Amino acid sequence: MKQKLRIIPLGGLGEIGKNMTVLEYGRDMIIVDCGVMFPDSDMPGIDLVLPQFDYVAQHQDRLRGIVLTHGHMDHIGGLPYLLRQVSAPLYGTALTMGLVKRQLQEANVLQRARLNTVGDNASLRLGEFKVSLFPVAHSIPGSLGLVIDTPVGAVVHTGDYKLDPTPVSGRTTDLARLRKLTPNGVLALLADSTNADRPGRTATEQSVTAELDRLLAATKKGRIIIATFASVLDRLQSILRLAQKHGRKVALTGRSLETNVMLAHELGYMDFPDHLLVPADARLPDHKLILLATGSQGEPTSALNRMAQGEHRQVQVKPGDTIIISGGTIPGNETEVGRMLNKLFALGANVIYGQLAGVHVSGHGARAEMAEMLTIVKPKFLLPVHGETRHLHLHARLAHEHGLKTEQVFVLNNGAAWATDGKKAWLEEPVAAADVLVDGRLVGEVGAIVVRDRQRLSQDGFIVALIPVDARNKLAGEPEIISRGFVADAASPDLFKAACREIKRQFQPGQRVAHEAIRETLQNFFYRETQSRPVVLPSLIKA
Amino acid sequence: MKQKLRIIPLGGLGEIGKNMTVLEYGRDMIIVDCGVMFPDSDMPGIDLVLPQFDYVAQHQDRLRGIVLTHGHMDHIGGLPYLLRQVSAPLYGTALTMGLVKRQLQEANVLQRARLNTVGDNASLRLGEFKVSLFPVAHSIPGSLGLVIDTPVGAVVHTGDYKLDPTPVSGRTTDLARLRKLTPNGVLALLADSTNADRPGRTATEQSVTAELDRLLAATKKGRIIIATFASVLDRLQSILRLAQKHGRKVALTGRSLETNVMLAHELGYMDFPDHLLVPADARLPDHKLILLATGSQGEPTSALNRMAQGEHRQVQVKPGDTIIISGGTIPGNETEVGRMLNKLFALGANVIYGQLAGVHVSGHGARAEMAEMLTIVKPKFLLPVHGETRHLHLHARLAHEHGLKTEQVFVLNNGAAWATDGKKAWLEEPVAAADVLVDGRLVGEVGAIVVRDRQRLSQDGFIVALIPVDARNKLAGEPEIISRGFVADAASPDLFKAACREIKRQFQPGQRVAHEAIRETLQNFFYRETQSRPVVLPSLIKA
Repeated sequence: MKQKLRIIPLGGLGEIGKNMTVLEYGRDMIIVDCGVMFPDSDMPGIDLVLPQFDYVAQHQDRLRGIVLTHGHMDHIGGLPYLLRQVSAPLYGTALTMGLVKRQLQEANVLQRARLNTVGDNASLRLGEFKVSLFPVAHSIPGSLGLVIDTPVGAVVHTGDYKLDPTPVSGRTTDLARLRKLTPNGVLALLADSTNADRPGRTATEQSVTAELDRLLAATKKGRIIIATFASVLDRLQSILRLAQKHGRKVALTGRSLETNVMLAHELGYMDFPDHLLVPADARLPDHKLILLATGSQGEPTSALNRMAQGEHRQVQVKPGDTIIISGGTIPGNETEVGRMLNKLFALGANVIYGQLAGVHVSGHGARAEMAEMLTIVKPKFLLPVHGETRHLHLHARLAHEHGLKTEQVFVLNNGAAWATDGKKAWLEEPVAAADVLVDGRLVGEVGAIVVRDRQRLSQDGFIVALIPVDARNKLAGEPEIISRGFVADAASPDLFKAACREIKRQFQPGQRVAHEAIRETLQNFFYRETQSRPVVLPSLIKA
Repeated sequence: MKQKLRIIPLGGLGEIGKNMTVLEYGRDMIIVDCGVMFPDSDMPGIDLVLPQFDYVAQHQDRLRGIVLTHGHMDHIGGLPYLLRQVSAPLYGTALTMGLVKRQLQEANVLQRARLNTVGDNASLRLGEFKVSLFPVAHSIPGSLGLVIDTPVGAVVHTGDYKLDPTPVSGRTTDLARLRKLTPNGVLALLADSTNADRPGRTATEQSVTAELDRLLAATKKGRIIIATFASVLDRLQSILRLAQKHGRKVALTGRSLETNVMLAHELGYMDFPDHLLVPADARLPDHKLILLATGSQGEPTSALNRMAQGEHRQVQVKPGDTIIISGGTIPGNETEVGRMLNKLFALGANVIYGQLAGVHVSGHGARAEMAEMLTIVKPKFLLPVHGETRHLHLHARLAHEHGLKTEQVFVLNNGAAWATDGKKAWLEEPVAAADVLVDGRLVGEVGAIVVRDRQRLSQDGFIVALIPVDARNKLAGEPEIISRGFVADAASPDLFKAACREIKRQFQPGQRVAHEAIRETLQNFFYRETQSRPVVLPSLIKA
């Protein structure tokens, strides 16, 4: 059989975050991106989710390089963990590599990494793969799309992109270069699906700048607090310029914001005079100050959320403050954002957010831009990437509306091994691509059972029944019940007494006790009495 | 001092749900609405949240009646609980009272209730209050607004309303009657704030009908599953008409849907031939069937969500199915809805939802309609009701844009006692208006501490340390650790051994053990080793 190209997404499909794609041809492998995912409420207590690296680690002798499309955490955040297992050269633009370097330093794995800064239009030879870069417009500078030439045809990976004709940075998506790089057509397109459920086009970033300008001009009194993502550096640049224009100084609150701005400044991606920045507790009249804060997603530890909770060390929100939420709500964060907004309003601030304000646009193109990409690239096969399951399917629907047939579009799962000989495509045995959960210092030791237990604990708490037994497993004293998070907690000692009677009833004279029978009895008892289902743990204590 | 009017919201402010307002004048009291709230993820394991009825119960000798604006659960769902504590006549339109009656029957409190069905334009004399009704357009038939004449002036309560000029039922909000009922101006306006963050007007319900018509015409093959709220009876009526037009039968899945449709049909609010309805497992060709299902909010036990999980007894979603989500996402439900949509797409269905589809409009007016209400009523005082804190404040901002001064607008908290003599207004000592949590059969016994414990349990699980001690509280054997939901669960017996050594270290020879010291030691130990904070419960076992 002749050689084939395999494309294996290890993350980023059906979810938001941890984007990672493996490409293989013969004895060569490359990786595009290696991100983390921030879990939502169905994974209580989990800090981070990583892609599973086993397949890559097993075949690391083939690994020729890791190409990074841009410096957002959902594309680079997994590197500190991956580089503990494999070694390979890394490629990306200056800002991307600056952000990668900082991450690796903090994780103490920098010495294992070979970082290569590449130009926007560079080409890399990585084994059988020739990777040619092209600039794309996204919410962080230095973002790239990739044309990957393989012996069976060209693959286009859009990275995260939009087709904003007038981005603040001037960096547009270079569709002319993309076309020039693909003179013989495109075998496979891996394209960003994030906004597949939004009609039309994403408005230009310039519209946000204009609205922020208007708001700053209209706000003569009081402090202005602007919350945005620490990673939307173009937005931050606009705000710094507008601050100068309107005679306000800027205080950065939130470590990621500070370090990102400093790094971008150092690398020449941002331009502002040093005296513009002041510390958050600077003694300035309120109308001379803009506080830039993280927390547009209501993240519990972000600066703005701590302000909303009244727990920020330096900033107390007060009547007269104008708070501008310059960030869209990422799906899954709506509840937290809503709660934070309620608290900020309750503190007396004038909060500008959402549909009534024009202070945010997405970093990703909407449906008309996705259609334009399909029209320009005309791929033989489309593999929608970067989105939850519904977005991937809506991207597929869009492709069908634009003439691609069912067999030309593959909505894959993580771990799917998509293979092609350049003519046809098929699926091979999938590789392991589970969620690897990070909780504190523990990586991968938290399994699905633990998460399920936590979900049940969060619903109804737990009951531990301490049952003294003798050497022959006969009851040897009074059972005792301890519980937490259970409805009847302090309220009904009678209930616990009745439960103890249920336990004793299990011990018919001369009979031994079965652990599982007690558990079942108690579970049924508590459900009958309270209609709730606490986690029940009987513990037989040898007296 | 002369008599004063007091208005006390006991629920519905700063949250979605459990709307309840008390009005008092002299020795007379009336209640408008008595709803429940469905808690979101920050109250794990809680089924329902009720308003606190203590104040009403204490003054029930003054209670002249309970007026219900419409039959949605956030306006009537608290009645079965309230009527266990107080007795008073209830007033509402036929559908509202039909829904109330069913609820009270199910809760076995019907015999305690005095139900009075009133016409759309009735007037009621309730002590010093004269309550005159006017019809409003909302997503359930028989919805009312109220003009409440008091000795110090007229109060307008909008109920839930929109100004749809062409609702499907033909029932528009009767602004002419509202004006006629208030010839001497309006002292206080209590107005719906739900959509205060949405610009413009809510599109007419007719636009939804037209789009559903188009979709049904375009869907020649396969089943159609339409998910909506069981309570949007006008929408259900449209769908039943369209089903007839397009030659499909309708199966109702979900008990609330079935009972609501039957009740509305019985009372003449809905009109369809009996043969149109078939059971969900009817043997019909797919293209002859519409399944109407609850679950547009992704509620765990709803019909559509059970289909998405593959757990519905009668309906398996399959490729070829078209699923129309004809319901907007209520704030706080976005995550659940997103997950459900992902699963439905993954099962191969063509799912129509959100911005790409025009298959839902809100039951509440948007900002331009709220402005129109302000302009027509011209209240001396505005009390925004029905909305989260941010919506109340945005409603206040709208009022200021329309000329109301700061001292004319009161954004209240639940329990606030707003008082007026007809000229000025002030706040008096607030009354108790906490959230009363319902968990299974337990009402109000689940406190904040239990909920907090559950939140911690859901993050990091728990550890119970069983420590055998002798009569003098000295260590008398090997400690044992049991845990659930904790990261290291099965993975690290070594960690538990080390924890046991930590416990033993506490027992210096001859020393007694302090329960609290062990708890702290273990908490610090586990945080140091795993950076997580399980709930730790040491249990000293007398050997």
